[in-house]
Amino acid sequence: MKEYPLLSTINSPVDLKKLPENQLEALCAELRQYIIEQTATNPGHLGSSLGTIELTVAIHYVFDTPDDKLVWDVGHQAYAHKILTGRRDAFVNNRKLNGISGFPKMAESEYDAFGVGHSSTSISAILGMATASALEGNTQRNHIAVIGDGAMTGGEAFEAFNHAGNTDTNMLVILNDNGMAIDKNVGGLHNYLTKLSTSSTYNKFKDKIWDLLTRKDNQAKRARNIIQRTQKAIKGGFLENSNVFDQIGLRYFGPIDGHDVILLVKVLRGLKNIAGKKVLHCITIKGKGLRQAEEQQTLYHAPGCFNAETGDVIKVAFEPDKVEKYQKVFGTTLVELADNNDKIVGITPAMAVGCSMDIMMKKYPDRCFDVGIAEQHAVTFSAGLATAGFIPFCNIYSTFLQRAYDQVIHDVALQNLHVIFCIDRAGIVGEDGSTHHGAFDLAYLRCIPNMIVSAPMNELELRNLMYTATETKSPFAIRYPRGNGVHVAWRNQPFELLPVGKGIALKTGEKTAILCLGHIANQVLKADEILSEKHHNIGIYNMRFLKPIDEQLLMSVCNHYQNIITIENGCKIGGLGSAVAEFITCHNLSNHLEIMGIPDKFIEQGTVEELHKICHISINDIIDMVEKIDK
Amino acid sequence: MKEYPLLSTINSPVDLKKLPENQLEALCAELRQYIIEQTATNPGHLGSSLGTIELTVAIHYVFDTPDDKLVWDVGHQAYAHKILTGRRDAFVNNRKLNGISGFPKMAESEYDAFGVGHSSTSISAILGMATASALEGNTQRNHIAVIGDGAMTGGEAFEAFNHAGNTDTNMLVILNDNGMAIDKNVGGLHNYLTKLSTSSTYNKFKDKIWDLLTRKDNQAKRARNIIQRTQKAIKGGFLENSNVFDQIGLRYFGPIDGHDVILLVKVLRGLKNIAGKKVLHCITIKGKGLRQAEEQQTLYHAPGCFNAETGDVIKVAFEPDKVEKYQKVFGTTLVELADNNDKIVGITPAMAVGCSMDIMMKKYPDRCFDVGIAEQHAVTFSAGLATAGFIPFCNIYSTFLQRAYDQVIHDVALQNLHVIFCIDRAGIVGEDGSTHHGAFDLAYLRCIPNMIVSAPMNELELRNLMYTATETKSPFAIRYPRGNGVHVAWRNQPFELLPVGKGIALKTGEKTAILCLGHIANQVLKADEILSEKHHNIGIYNMRFLKPIDEQLLMSVCNHYQNIITIENGCKIGGLGSAVAEFITCHNLSNHLEIMGIPDKFIEQGTVEELHKICHISINDIIDMVEKIDK
Repeated sequence: MKEYPLLSTINSPVDLKKLPENQLEALCAELRQYIIEQTATNPGHLGSSLGTIELTVAIHYVFDTPDDKLVWDVGHQAYAHKILTGRRDAFVNNRKLNGISGFPKMAESEYDAFGVGHSSTSISAILGMATASALEGNTQRNHIAVIGDGAMTGGEAFEAFNHAGNTDTNMLVILNDNGMAIDKNVGGLHNYLTKLSTSSTYNKFKDKIWDLLTRKDNQAKRARNIIQRTQKAIKGGFLENSNVFDQIGLRYFGPIDGHDVILLVKVLRGLKNIAGKKVLHCITIKGKGLRQAEEQQTLYHAPGCFNAETGDVIKVAFEPDKVEKYQKVFGTTLVELADNNDKIVGITPAMAVGCSMDIMMKKYPDRCFDVGIAEQHAVTFSAGLATAGFIPFCNIYSTFLQRAYDQVIHDVALQNLHVIFCIDRAGIVGEDGSTHHGAFDLAYLRCIPNMIVSAPMNELELRNLMYTATETKSPFAIRYPRGNGVHVAWRNQPFELLPVGKGIALKTGEKTAILCLGHIANQVLKADEILSEKHHNIGIYNMRFLKPIDEQLLMSVCNHYQNIITIENGCKIGGLGSAVAEFITCHNLSNHLEIMGIPDKFIEQGTVEELHKICHISINDIIDMVEKIDK
Repeated sequence: MKEYPLLSTINSPVDLKKLPENQLEALCAELRQYIIEQTATNPGHLGSSLGTIELTVAIHYVFDTPDDKLVWDVGHQAYAHKILTGRRDAFVNNRKLNGISGFPKMAESEYDAFGVGHSSTSISAILGMATASALEGNTQRNHIAVIGDGAMTGGEAFEAFNHAGNTDTNMLVILNDNGMAIDKNVGGLHNYLTKLSTSSTYNKFKDKIWDLLTRKDNQAKRARNIIQRTQKAIKGGFLENSNVFDQIGLRYFGPIDGHDVILLVKVLRGLKNIAGKKVLHCITIKGKGLRQAEEQQTLYHAPGCFNAETGDVIKVAFEPDKVEKYQKVFGTTLVELADNNDKIVGITPAMAVGCSMDIMMKKYPDRCFDVGIAEQHAVTFSAGLATAGFIPFCNIYSTFLQRAYDQVIHDVALQNLHVIFCIDRAGIVGEDGSTHHGAFDLAYLRCIPNMIVSAPMNELELRNLMYTATETKSPFAIRYPRGNGVHVAWRNQPFELLPVGKGIALKTGEKTAILCLGHIANQVLKADEILSEKHHNIGIYNMRFLKPIDEQLLMSVCNHYQNIITIENGCKIGGLGSAVAEFITCHNLSNHLEIMGIPDKFIEQGTVEELHKICHISINDIIDMVEKIDK
C-alpha cells in the first residue's frame, strides 16, 4: 500500500497509539482517501464516514479500546473505525457476501462493542455497559457512545438520557452534530443544537474550557477544578442549569470542531480524566473532504459508484425504456392520488428521498411531514391525522416499522383508523445486511386485528393497491421490496379498485400450485418457463392479500391440487405459509404443503440474488422444489 | 342523586358551562366524592383520577370540547372526564363487561378524541389533530393533551415534542406533574421538573404572568403583548432560551397549582387566546383528597376495594394456605437466583411493584433498575448489560413489550445476547381491556430467530424456567398471566433445569390430544375431569416451549392421535396453533387441527372468566370442542 504509508502500518489501535500526534492529520488524510477510493467502486455509506474520521482517530488514540467500550449509533459512520481496528484489508469486501458488515457487529470484532444498524440505541447500550462496570467496581473504564444529531431525534435516545441522568456511571456521549439525518435533520432539537453552536456566549465559554482542558496532563487536576468552579458560576443564572443536557444530569462540553484531530485528542484526554456522565458536542460536516459530498449531502449519504478522482457520481446511461423502482412508483402515484384528494397527506420518518416522498414534498410541501428519525411518533401522528378525516400515507421501511409496532397495534389498528402503511424495503434488502432485511413484517402484522396486509407483484399493482387503500376505510399495509419492478406499464394508467382480500390465478395447472405473495411471484413465473419445458404444469396464484386471505381461492386450490407451495419474501414463520397451513389443517384437508421464505435465522449481507439463494427462494430453488414434489 | 346536587345536573360539558365559577370548587368536591365512592366498590385507577379533577373541570369549562380536541395520555386519570361527558351513570359499570372502558375510547364518546391505554402517545396524537386543523385553515380550534410526568419519560413523547417544535400549530400540552408513574417517577427529567417547580426565579416570574393572564378578557391582548415582551427580556440570558420546553420550540407556562380550579380556569382562558404551541406545567398530587391515597401513592394507584368512608383498603382475610400470584413467584425466585449469582440484575420500566421486582429492589437496590416508562431503553440497556456478562431479567408486561419490539429483535436476538424477558400480564388481563390484553406476544416473538419462547403452567414451572433461563445462554422469554397460580408447592423447592424445547405428557389418551401452552393447561385438566366422566379419553400435553417447539413430541402425538386441539392464552394467529399447523402440513400428516386462542379481534374489558368465554377458551369451551371432534 504505497499510497498509504501511515495507514498501511496500522493493524490495530495499538499501532495507532505509536504514532506521534503530529502525524495524526496525515493519517486522517490517508483514511479519507482510502474510504473514498474503496467506496467509489464498492458502494457504501460514504458521507457519514467521511464526517467522523478525525473523531475516530482521536477516540482510538486516546482511549484504550477494546477494554474501553465504544458504541457507534446507527454505525454507517464507522468505516474509519473498522479500518483502524484490523479490518483495513477486509474493507475491500465491505457489505459483500462473506465480507465484513457495513455496520459494527459484535461477532466481527472485539472492537465492535455493540452491533448497530437501527438508530438511537447507542446511549442505552453504553449505559448498560457503564452500569456493568460500576457494578463490578471498575471506575476506570471509559464508555463512549457516538451519536449523530439525526439519531438524537429517536425517542430511545431520550429515554436513555433520562435514565443516565440518575445514575452514577462513567460515560461519554459524543454528539456528532452535522445537521443531517439521511435527509436534512428536522425538529426542535435540531434548532436548539444550532442555537447552541452559534451562541457567542457559549463559544467564548468554550474557548476558556478548552484552554484549561488542553493543558498538559499533569495540570489536569487543576484544570478540572477550574472547570467545575466555572460551570458552577455560570450556572447561577436563570434556572441554575445552563442547557438541556446539564438539566437532565449530564455535563455538557462543547461545541468543538470535530475535524480538528489535534484539538479532539486534547479534549478527549481531558474528558477521560473527568469522571461521570458527559456529553461532548462536536460539529462535523457530512461528506467532509469530498467537495460533492459536502455539497450534496443526501445524495452522497450512499452515492453508489463514483469517480474517486473527481468525486462525480457515475451516472447510468439514459435508458428511456428502463425498469423503474417501486419507490418511484410509490412517489409518483402518491402525488397523483394527492392531486385528486386533498385529504391525502404523506408522513416519513427521515426517509423522504429513500422512499421517494420527496416528489410529493416538492409539489405539496404543506401536506408532507418529515418527522425526523421517529417511527413511533410517525405512526401515532398519522393516527391523529386520520381521526380528523385525513388519509395519511405513512411510509416506513419494513425493518424500521418494528420500532413502531405498538403504535400500529394500539393507536391505529385498535381504533380501526384509516392509516395507510407503505412498507418499503420489505424482504431481503441486500448489502445493508442482517439489521436491515425486512423479514418480519408479514408475521408481525398478520396477527393484528383489523389490519389489511397486502403486497403487489408489480408496479401496476402497487399503484392500484395504493388507490384501493385510499378507498378502504381500514388500516391498510402495502409492502414492497427495495428496487426495480418488472416493467409493466403503470404510468398514467387509470386507477383500478382491487377487491380487498382477493387473489388471482396467474395460471392453472395440474398437481402442484404455488401461492405467491408480492414481487417474488415474478420469480415463480420465470421458474415456470423452465418447469414448463420440463413438463411440469403447475398452477400459479398471486394472493395479493395476506390478510384477509382469500379463503375461497384457497379452498378451490386445495381441492384442485394435491401439493401446495407458498412463497414469500419474508420469514417462513408466521406469514403466508402459516396462514395456508392453518387453513389446510383446520379445514380437514390433506394437502401437502411446502413453505418457502426466509429461514429462521438472521441473514447477513450480500447481493439480493446471493441472499435469495441462501434463503432458498431463488428461481432455481423454486424449480428444485417443484421437481421434488410435483410427482 | 341527592348527595350530588351539582354533579347530578351535569350530563355534558354544556351543562358544566352553565355553572357559575364560584360553584366549580363544590363540583370538584362532588366529583371527588363520586369517584371515591364508585371505585371503592368497583375497583379502578383511583390515584391518578383524584389528581386531575380540577384540571378536568377547568378544561371542559373553558374549552369547547368536543370541537376542541382533548387527549389524555395513558387515560387512567380520565374518570372525571368520563363522568362529565355523559358517562356519570355509566360509570357504575366502569371496566365491566359491556360497561364503559377504564380508558378513553373513541368508539365510546365523541369527547374521547383519541383512545389511549399505553403511555406517551398523546402529544403525537394531538399534534396530528392540530396539524389537521392547520391544513383545513382552522386557526381557532384548540388541541389539548394532558400528559403526566411519568409518561413524559417515554421516548415517543420526546419525538412528538421535537416535531411539534418545528410546526405552526395551535396546541397546548398540559404537563400533569405529580412526581409519579405508577411507582415513583425517576430520571433526569423528573429531577429537572422538580428544580423547575421549586425555582424561586421561576415562581416570581410565574406570579407576574398569572396576574397578567387572569385579567378580564378584554385586556387579554394587552396582557399577551406584555407576556411576549417579558419573556423576550427574560430570555436574554445565558442561552437565549429559558428552559427545555422553550428551547425546543414550545412556549412554557407554569408551574401552577393543579388543584386550584379557579386559577386553572383563569390560566386556561388566557392560554386559549395565545396561538401556537404551549406547555402548561401543573403541579398535582396523586390521590388528592383521600389521605391514604396521598400517602401511599403506589398502593392507591389501583387499590382494589376500599372503604369509601375511611379510605382504608379492604384487606382480604389472612389465608396461610392461599394460592399465590405468578408475580409473587417471579419476585421471590428472582431474589433467590440473585442470591446465588451476583451477575443477575433486574430491569423494570416503571412497574417494580406490579411485577414484584420491588422484593429484589429492597434486598439488592444496586442491582435493580427502574428505568422509567421506557420499554425501548429497558431492552437495549439490558442488552448492554448482557454484553458485559451480566444476566438481566427484563420484566415487561406483554402489551408493553410491543413498544420494544425492534429492540428485542435488533439489540437482543440478532446479537444472541443472554437477556431474559419475563413477560408479565400475558394473555387476557381482564378489566384493563383492549389496550392491555397480552394477546400478541407469542405470535410476534415466535418469528424472531434465536429466541426461546416459553410459558409455565404453574408456579413451580415458572420458578424452574427462570432458573433454566439463567443457565441457557440465549435470549429467553417466559410469559405468564396476571394473577394466581394453581397452588403447587414452589417455595424453597430445589431448582430444576428443564430441557429447552421439550414438552411433557400430562396424560395420554385415545383419539384426541390437546396441546397446551402455559397456565391455560390447568383449565384443560379441569375440563378433562368432566370429559372423563363423559367417556372421552383425551391426551393432554404441556408444551412448555413454543420455540423451539418439541418436534419429537409433536410427531409422536400426530402419529398417535387423529384429532389435535391446541390451546393458548394468546391470539390464534401466529402462535402455538400456527406452529402445529405448519408441522402437520409440512410433514405430510393428515391430522385434523383445531386452534383455540384469542380470536382475531380486539377484546374489550370484563373479568378474565367472562373474557375467556368470549374468546371460547373457557373450560366449557374446551369441553364443547372435545365433544364436537372426539368421535
